[in-house]
Order: sequence, then structure tokens, then C-alpha cells
Amino acid sequence: MTQLALKAQELADRLGGTLRHCPPDRLLTTVDPLHEATEASVSFFTNSKYRDQALHTRAGLVLVGTREDLGEVPQLAVANAYFAFAQATGWLRPEPEPEFSDGPVHPAAVLGAGCRLGWGATVGARSVIGARTILHPGVHIAEDCVVGEDCEFYPGVALYRRSVVGARVRLHANTVVGSDGFGYATVDGIQMKVPQAGWVDIEDDVEIGSNTSIDRGALGPTRIRRGAKLDNQCQIAHNVQVGEHCLIAAQAGISGSTILGDHVTFGGKVGTAGHLHLGRGSVCAGNAMVAKDLPEGSFVSGYLARPHREWLASQAALNRLPAILKELRRKSEEQA
Amino acid sequence: MTQLALKAQELADRLGGTLRHCPPDRLLTTVDPLHEATEASVSFFTNSKYRDQALHTRAGLVLVGTREDLGEVPQLAVANAYFAFAQATGWLRPEPEPEFSDGPVHPAAVLGAGCRLGWGATVGARSVIGARTILHPGVHIAEDCVVGEDCEFYPGVALYRRSVVGARVRLHANTVVGSDGFGYATVDGIQMKVPQAGWVDIEDDVEIGSNTSIDRGALGPTRIRRGAKLDNQCQIAHNVQVGEHCLIAAQAGISGSTILGDHVTFGGKVGTAGHLHLGRGSVCAGNAMVAKDLPEGSFVSGYLARPHREWLASQAALNRLPAILKELRRKSEEQA
Amino acid sequence: MTQLALKAQELADRLGGTLRHCPPDRLLTTVDPLHEATEASVSFFTNSKYRDQALHTRAGLVLVGTREDLGEVPQLAVANAYFAFAQATGWLRPEPEPEFSDGPVHPAAVLGAGCRLGWGATVGARSVIGARTILHPGVHIAEDCVVGEDCEFYPGVALYRRSVVGARVRLHANTVVGSDGFGYATVDGIQMKVPQAGWVDIEDDVEIGSNTSIDRGALGPTRIRRGAKLDNQCQIAHNVQVGEHCLIAAQAGISGSTILGDHVTFGGKVGTAGHLHLGRGSVCAGNAMVAKDLPEGSFVSGYLARPHREWLASQAALNRLPAILKELRRKSEEQA
Repeated sequence: MTQLALKAQELADRLGGTLRHCPPDRLLTTVDPLHEATEASVSFFTNSKYRDQALHTRAGLVLVGTREDLGEVPQLAVANAYFAFAQATGWLRPEPEPEFSDGPVHPAAVLGAGCRLGWGATVGARSVIGARTILHPGVHIAEDCVVGEDCEFYPGVALYRRSVVGARVRLHANTVVGSDGFGYATVDGIQMKVPQAGWVDIEDDVEIGSNTSIDRGALGPTRIRRGAKLDNQCQIAHNVQVGEHCLIAAQAGISGSTILGDHVTFGGKVGTAGHLHLGRGSVCAGNAMVAKDLPEGSFVSGYLARPHREWLASQAALNRLPAILKELRRKSEEQA
Repeated sequence: MTQLALKAQELADRLGGTLRHCPPDRLLTTVDPLHEATEASVSFFTNSKYRDQALHTRAGLVLVGTREDLGEVPQLAVANAYFAFAQATGWLRPEPEPEFSDGPVHPAAVLGAGCRLGWGATVGARSVIGARTILHPGVHIAEDCVVGEDCEFYPGVALYRRSVVGARVRLHANTVVGSDGFGYATVDGIQMKVPQAGWVDIEDDVEIGSNTSIDRGALGPTRIRRGAKLDNQCQIAHNVQVGEHCLIAAQAGISGSTILGDHVTFGGKVGTAGHLHLGRGSVCAGNAMVAKDLPEGSFVSGYLARPHREWLASQAALNRLPAILKELRRKSEEQA
Repeated sequence: MTQLALKAQELADRLGGTLRHCPPDRLLTTVDPLHEATEASVSFFTNSKYRDQALHTRAGLVLVGTREDLGEVPQLAVANAYFAFAQATGWLRPEPEPEFSDGPVHPAAVLGAGCRLGWGATVGARSVIGARTILHPGVHIAEDCVVGEDCEFYPGVALYRRSVVGARVRLHANTVVGSDGFGYATVDGIQMKVPQAGWVDIEDDVEIGSNTSIDRGALGPTRIRRGAKLDNQCQIAHNVQVGEHCLIAAQAGISGSTILGDHVTFGGKVGTAGHLHLGRGSVCAGNAMVAKDLPEGSFVSGYLARPHREWLASQAALNRLPAILKELRRKSEEQA
């Protein structure tokens, strides 16, 4: 891959935008989130939740809407900052073509000692599989993955390129790691794809059930931290972080960039909005739909999720409501 | 496949029914939905929502319940019209046996120029794969499929026979296209399978996440129109139509025959009933459960889904309800 | 596999517990649920719902918490009975290593007459596939499975070891049978895996949609009984029983050990708590969240699920609530 780079002015020209507080010949070579950016990074700011990060970023250039003003931060003001970012990502971080091989294991793959592959398991170029790891038939590992020791992946598990998996991780059948996050910039009602340039990082001692989907980050990683346990059919969106020793029951759906502290527990079918922070040790009862940040040690339920006691009270009231309304009508008629 | 055909009277005899307004020697060679039927078609009418279609159908024979009367329409009145239709479908549109080959690519498959297959990807008889399309390891394309140019299918994607996919379509790992719709006619408490004789038609520029299921039509197609984007773990039932440039977040479930207009947006975990029409540009908030048709440009939420403002108001009222009931009780005691 | 056995006193020593009413040299060779245990079985009691089973078990030794007392039943009292059980299971029922072969079909597999395999379908050691059964490309059957006659499994279906499937069963693409149940004993905030020593038993004439997950039992089977039909993306937890001719629509989630009587019907996205009994012929409307046992012939809806009429009444009342509260406020101000 040749080194890709664009000067700030070139970017401004291509994107039809205006540079502010940025030398036109600044060389930009990559895209990064605001809090991890360096002077060579293009970043973007479209969600006011991250204003603080934007004001303190080290990014060489931040894409913003034309009405936005980040003060002294080097900015490129454009009509649609998110779409501009999608384009910049395509230029600076283009998705490489897949590299297929003639047999199931690419000659440039590295299999550790005692590693066992079922018939038809495939391992891509430059992927490294740790000692004693077991890949059942029909497991597919793409290019540039790193898988630790003593893992076991069941049939149909798919790792997209650049996935990182720790030691002693068990992935059950047909679980997908690293699929594209659901990111589109809408331009005149048409969804333009935002290239998903990040990866998935699954730490040691994680177990994940069958038919679960873990999307890779748009930038940077989606993380499943040490010892977390996820059940079947969970949906983990891009840039989610699941904390250490979380326990996530089946059919959970965690929206993009939401962060679960350590030891968070979900009952079945829990859903969350995106960009939330769920405090350490929070418990979300089955089917809870979490739309707000949760303080440490919360216990919530319901749709929308609220403290469990409050939810119980409102449900009890709701159940009594038809009778109460009838009674009110009777009284009101008596008084009339 | 030999030409299959039954005379109307033969059908009546086999199904134990009575012909009305239909010449007994009319030759019936296929099954079709009411609005697409021709004189050679058997169709059926069991859902009053489609009465208008039934009264104006061109079908050669419509299966109806014995208490039903469609006037001059050629009818076959039977005890269980849906089960009769299942049987007729089995006779006139029998599922062919799968045709396996000795290698991953059937000799009668056609691969376009620059098409690339990962190790172990399989392509069935008479399937045509467009130029430059990439099939990752473990992709399985059955017989008689048509896939356009510049597509990319990730590991474990499965296309059932007769699936049609346009150009530049991306299907993520372990997504299934064309599985049997969930159709059973219940006879004495036993579910009798209704053969699913349709197919799936995915148009150009569609992207679909991982572990999603798109069932084929019972008759005719399930359609995902141009430019639509579906996230992971969506469930698209038989004969659904997803409009152009719809944006459907993860874990949505769209029930049979529901039609989404263009530019419809779903948050995560949205569910819909079957046979609905969701107007162009409708927005369904996360977890909404849609049980009614939606006019163009609707914005709904809740369970059951209603206009978002109404839902917000009812939620606010519900949250205050326990306190209000307490207050009412206090007043009522004061008055007593 | 050498015969594994531990004396009661050895178990007590390893687990740091106290024997009660149990001869220290009793030989224990297996683990079993309370109601199926014999004198050679270790069992456990942690859920008061099963007290009656515990008091009448024939188990040679029951693991209980130190504060628990089961009278004359042979007990081993330990600090964490569930974790102790996990350890005992690991000692007495260790998971065997997978046995891979050089080709897709293990030499010790048995394929019935007329059985057809797509390219790349794999069958493990000692698995027996019935006559005329069709395994599409990419189906993976592990060791020691039994599959009946005239089945059809679509691409990507995975059977874990010891799965049992009857005749005429259709499993759609990427459905998983026998993945590990979600069982962990929490010790100081860390989830310790409870080995899942059971299996899945799918009876005759069952059809299961695509991307569905059926976990194997923790002990004993998870059962899908004769003629049941499950749609796409259903999640069936360990030790669930789905009754004969049940009809389960897409995206259902049934929690561990819940039992569905025969002819139960679920709309889409239904969820249930664990350890419930849903009576024969019950109907759960779409999106219902069932948290209690249901008597025979129930019809429930809502979150939490209650009788459908009650739920309709509470929804109607809820919709009117904002207007009613306004009216109450007005009256209250008039009186003031």
C-alpha cells in the first residue's frame, strides 16, 4: 500500500469547503476520532455531545458544518461534515481488496503450535492463530487477524480482516466479528456509505453465543473487554465498548458508541440508544429499552427504561387505570 | 421439468370442493397472487383486506371458503381455502430437488469476468455471477440465481435458488437470502406447510448487515428496492417490500406482505404486523411496534406505535400516574 | 474415555463442603437434574421453585448452599452450590476434544442410503445421517449426532455434538443446534462457566427458520417436539421444551427451562422469562413479554404480558390519560 496523504487545501478543494485556522499545506495521512487524533489526522464533529472533545482535540483538521465554530481548532467547514468525513475516509483509508488463496490456509498465515483446524476452515493472509486454538469446520478468518491461544471457534464463525481476539475466547457457531458498522451519510435522501475503518478487539476469556454480530468500529475499535459473556443473537454496533465481566443475555442490541462499564448485566432483548454510558454494575431487566446514561449500580426496567421501582409503580397504576377511570366517571356523573 | 397442469374439475375432485362460474375443463398450470394471476393461474382469497383484488382478479380459479362468495369470479369453494392452496401449490409448483456438483462451482454456473471466489465458496447450477463480484470463503449460492456486477458477499452468506441480486450489492456474513417464508395452513391443530414458490429480488446498491434473514415470497418476490440499507439481524418475511433508500436499523422484524414506501427509516428493534403499508418517508423510532398503516411522512413510536408526540404525552402521564392516583385517593378520603 | 468417578468425601474435600446424610464412600459418576438423578448422580438445588423435586430426588448427592436444609436428602453443603455444581460437572462430564478428519466426512460417520451431501458439507465421527437426507453445501454436523430420514438442512446449519434430530426435519440456513447454554456461576463478580453437559433433541416433522439458535441443555435435553414450527432468528435457551405443533414466529426469545405445552402460538418478537410453564394452546401476541406461568388456552399480550382484554383496556386508558389529567387539573382549579 503506497502512503496516502492529502494537503489540507487539497481536501478543502475536493470537498468544496473553507479552511479555518489551518495551514493549507498541512499534510493529512489518516482519519481518527477526536480524542485519539494527532496532527496528521482528519477528524469530524457533528454530535454536540462531543463538543468538549472537539475543542481539545489534537487533530490536524476537523470537519465541521458551515454554521459550526470550534474557535482556534483547525477546521474545514463544509455543507455536510459527516459525508465529507466519509469521503476523506475513503481517500485516506481505502479498504484493501481481499486476498484469496488456492487452499483453505493462506501461505502467509501463521498457525501456532498445537493449533487444530477442522476440514474447510480458512485462514487469511498474515493472520496469526495462537497455540492450541481450535477452528471448527467452516470457520473463516480473513486477513491480518490476531487470535490468541486456547481459543475455540465453532462452525461458521467469521472474522473480518484486522480482528483482534485474546486468549481462551470461545465464539459460537455463525457469530460474526468485524462486519461493517451501519454508517451512512444522507445526501438528498440517498445514503452514502461511511467506510468503516476500525476493527474489533475482543479481550481474554470472553465467550460469545451463536449468531451474534459484532460490528467493527467506524474509527478505532469496538471492544469486548476481558471476561465479558454475551449470549446468542446479540447485536453490538460500531465502537461499542462492553466492559469487563459484563453479562449480556440473548437478543440484546447495543447501539453505536455506547459504553458499558464493568460488571453490567442485561436480561434478554435489552436495547440501548447510541452514545450512552452505562455505569459499572448497572442491571437492565429483560426487554428494557435504555435511552439515557445510567449511573453506577442502576437497576432499570421498562420501555423507556427507568428505575425498576418506578417502573413497577407505573405498571401497577396502569393496570388499575381502567377501573379508576370508570370510578371517576361515576363520581363525575353523581356530582352533575 | 415436465409441464404440470390440472383441469379445474380435477382440482375440485382432489380438494373436495365445488366449482362456481368456472368451466370444468379449464386448464390450470400455475399458482399466482390475485393481482398477478392470469387465466392459467390458481389463486386464493382468505384475507378480507384483499377482497377488492379478489373481485377484480384475472385468475382462472380462486380458492375460497365455502361461506365466501365472490360473485362472477371463477371460484372453487372448499372447507379450508388456505390449505387447499398449499396443496395446489405443491402439485403445480413442486420444489425441484437440489442439484449438487463434485466441486465448489457447478459446471453449469457462469462466472463473469474478474469475478473472484474465496476458497470453498460454492455456486450452483445455472447461476450467473456478474463481473468483478467477490464471493468470500464459505459463500453458498444455490441454483438459478442471478447476481449482478461488483457485488461483495462475505463468509457464510447463503442464497437459496432463484434469488436475484442487482449490482454493487454488499451482503454481510451469515446473511440468508431466500429461506422459506413462515407459511402453514392449520388443519385440526396441525400445521401443514404452504410451499413457498416465490423468490427474493434485491435491487442495485443495497447493503445488508450480518445474520439477517430475507425470506422468499410465498408467491412472487420479496423485494428490497434500490439503495435500501438494512442492518444486522433483521428479519424480512415473505412478500415484504422494502422501498428505495430505506434505512432499517438492527433487529427489525417486518411481517409478511408489509410494504415500506421509499425513504422509510426504522430505529433498532422495530416490529411491524403483516399486510401493512408504511407511507413514504415514515420514521419509526427504536422499538416501535407498528400495527396499523402509516400515512406518508409519519413519525411514530411506542408499543403499539402511535404518533410520536402522543406517545411522549402518554409516557409522561404514565410516569406521573402513581403520584396522581395517590393524590386522588387523598382527596376522595377528605370528601368522605 | 476412562470411567470417571469421585467418592462423596472426595467431592466434599475438593469443594470445601460438608456432607450430610451421605455415606462418605458413595461413588458418584455423573451429574443429573434433580428429577432424573440416580444414586450415582450429583445434582444441585439453588432455585426454590424446585424444592419439591429436591425433597423427592433419588440423587446420590445434592449440592446445596450452607443455609439450605433438605432434611434426609443426601447433601453436600457448600458456599456457592451453583459454582460447585459447575466444578463437579467439569470433573465428571468433561467436554471431549473435537475429532477432526482429513476430509469432509469422517471415516466413522454413517450415511444412509440415498443421503446427499453438497460440496463441503461435513459430518463428524460416529454421526449417523438417515436415508435420503440432504445436507446442502456448508452444513456442519459434529460428532455423535443422529439425524433421521428425509431431512433437509440448508447451507451453514451447524449441529454441535450429540444433537438428535428426527425424520423429515427442515433446518434453514445458518441455524445452530446445540450451542452452549448461557450458564455461569458468579464468584466475586467473575462469571465461571457452567459446563453444558446436555444435548438438543428435535423430533419428527419440525421445521426451523434461518439464523435460529437452539442451545443444548445444561443437563439433559433441550427439546423441540414433534411438528413444531419455528421461524427465523428465534433464540431457544438451554433446557427449554417447545411442545408439539407449536407455532413460534420470528425473533422469539425463550429463556432457560421454560416449557411450552402443545399447540402454543407466538407472534413475532415474543419473549419469556425462564422456568415458566405456558399451558397448552396458549397464544402470545406479537411482542408480548411473558413473565408468569400461563394457564391452558390463555391469550396474552403486552409488556408485561397479561390477558389480552385487560391489556387492550389499559392501552385505551393510557391513550386517554393525557386528556383526562388535563380535565382533572381544570376541575381541581375550579374547586380551588
